Amino acid sequence: MKKKFYESFYFTKGKDFRLSKISPGDTSLVNFDKQDAQGLLHNLNLKIDALQELLYAESKNKVLIILQGMDTSGKDGTIRDVLQGVNPQGVKVKSFKAPSAEELSHDYLWRVHQAMPAAGEMVIFNRSHYEDVLAVRVHNYVSQKVWRKRYAHINDFELMLADEGVTILKFFLHISKDEQKKRLQERLDDSRKHWKFRITDLKERKLWDEYQKVYEEMIQKTSTKHAPWVVVPSDHKWFRNIVIASAIVDALENLKMHYPESPADLKGIKIV
Amino acid sequence: MKKKFYESFYFTKGKDFRLSKISPGDTSLVNFDKQDAQGLLHNLNLKIDALQELLYAESKNKVLIILQGMDTSGKDGTIRDVLQGVNPQGVKVKSFKAPSAEELSHDYLWRVHQAMPAAGEMVIFNRSHYEDVLAVRVHNYVSQKVWRKRYAHINDFELMLADEGVTILKFFLHISKDEQKKRLQERLDDSRKHWKFRITDLKERKLWDEYQKVYEEMIQKTSTKHAPWVVVPSDHKWFRNIVIASAIVDALENLKMHYPESPADLKGIKIV
Repeated sequence: MKKKFYESFYFTKGKDFRLSKISPGDTSLVNFDKQDAQGLLHNLNLKIDALQELLYAESKNKVLIILQGMDTSGKDGTIRDVLQGVNPQGVKVKSFKAPSAEELSHDYLWRVHQAMPAAGEMVIFNRSHYEDVLAVRVHNYVSQKVWRKRYAHINDFELMLADEGVTILKFFLHISKDEQKKRLQERLDDSRKHWKFRITDLKERKLWDEYQKVYEEMIQKTSTKHAPWVVVPSDHKWFRNIVIASAIVDALENLKMHYPESPADLKGIKIV
Repeated sequence: MKKKFYESFYFTKGKDFRLSKISPGDTSLVNFDKQDAQGLLHNLNLKIDALQELLYAESKNKVLIILQGMDTSGKDGTIRDVLQGVNPQGVKVKSFKAPSAEELSHDYLWRVHQAMPAAGEMVIFNRSHYEDVLAVRVHNYVSQKVWRKRYAHINDFELMLADEGVTILKFFLHISKDEQKKRLQERLDDSRKHWKFRITDLKERKLWDEYQKVYEEMIQKTSTKHAPWVVVPSDHKWFRNIVIASAIVDALENLKMHYPESPADLKGIKIV
């Protein structure tokens, strides 16, 4: 596996980006299969765990990981699979649901800003401020005049964060319409999974094409050097996990972290 | 292993509690050893994971787990070992450090209240409002007139939380002075662990007897039916883990949770 086998999914600029060029079911970029992936993922889990401890020990960098994708695209599953075994104290997960009345009465970045990682922290966003150019746009919750300014706001906001020491990684979990059909049907056919099903999921599915369009535009307009998008072919969960875990390991390794110097001269101290 | 092998560590009233009656190194209550404990803990991890999913699915109960103990008593290690494999999205860890200026300018329960679990959530406190009758008292940060009222405040506060659906479990990680010596020396002797060492740890250790006294009084005054203390012999990490994981499993099982009914009639729906 070469260092960045997922390079073709990695976007630091989005001008010519076309979602249709990335196939959600394609796994041809790697020369291993589902069986091999288990062991590889386990090794990546261990690496993330060790790097997270270093991140916390050094307490200098801040890491933000954003997960976006259609219903059933695997945001919850990614958190479980990729962060398995990482110290629960070292990872904060923030899920953004429909905004509260108080949240709505502020600007859309207000609640997001509050959830940002502090030095030494790793925060995972399950959905994010990007909903404010996705669901909000598809459902016409605000006018075009309002949402079209948001891409620039978001780029500016993320630039400020990056300048202040936040490493930002954004993953779009890209599934096919057929795969979503399969996954939704599985939830319906297993009564223990009914609690995950909302009748609105069916309405959202009818807006599939509109969503694909706004996702594409999101990636076109907000892929930057300081906050790249990784478009993850996600029909195969094992492939999705390996791409995301690898990208996280790379990003953490690129921080060139070190255990801090001793806070004082501790040589020769004997505890009594 | 009978259901509550740890019953003698479990306090719903503290009137006659004496810390000296519980030996930090005692593991005689169980008929297994460190080797067996690994497998047992793994099973308990899996149970907590399944129960956490149910807690989240039902979204009715709230669970608060408080960890207190001297430096090196194993609060961080407990979080890692006991919650390993639990969905990171399902568990929030809140570490209480020295209060900020803003926090100090509010009452001492203000910052704690904000971190409470919502329905379906499990929150772990690494230290807590109990520091306000522990470190605060040992260091005379406030006068006796102020701290002596706090036991009643805390009981009242926790009663309100319990009445509002919060299950509260409080663990005191009880180690011996010798064991702390060993663990502090290990940190000193391994330069990769120096970042965990603060020179103030040595000062705190000198206050060992004062701390034991205020811990004892804390357990005497705040052991209640609605928010019991479990005093965990913690010189042996494997024993500590089994006690805490078992108590968490028992508490979650006692909630008698069920997967919720389907939100709508989902029978026969076919996804298109």
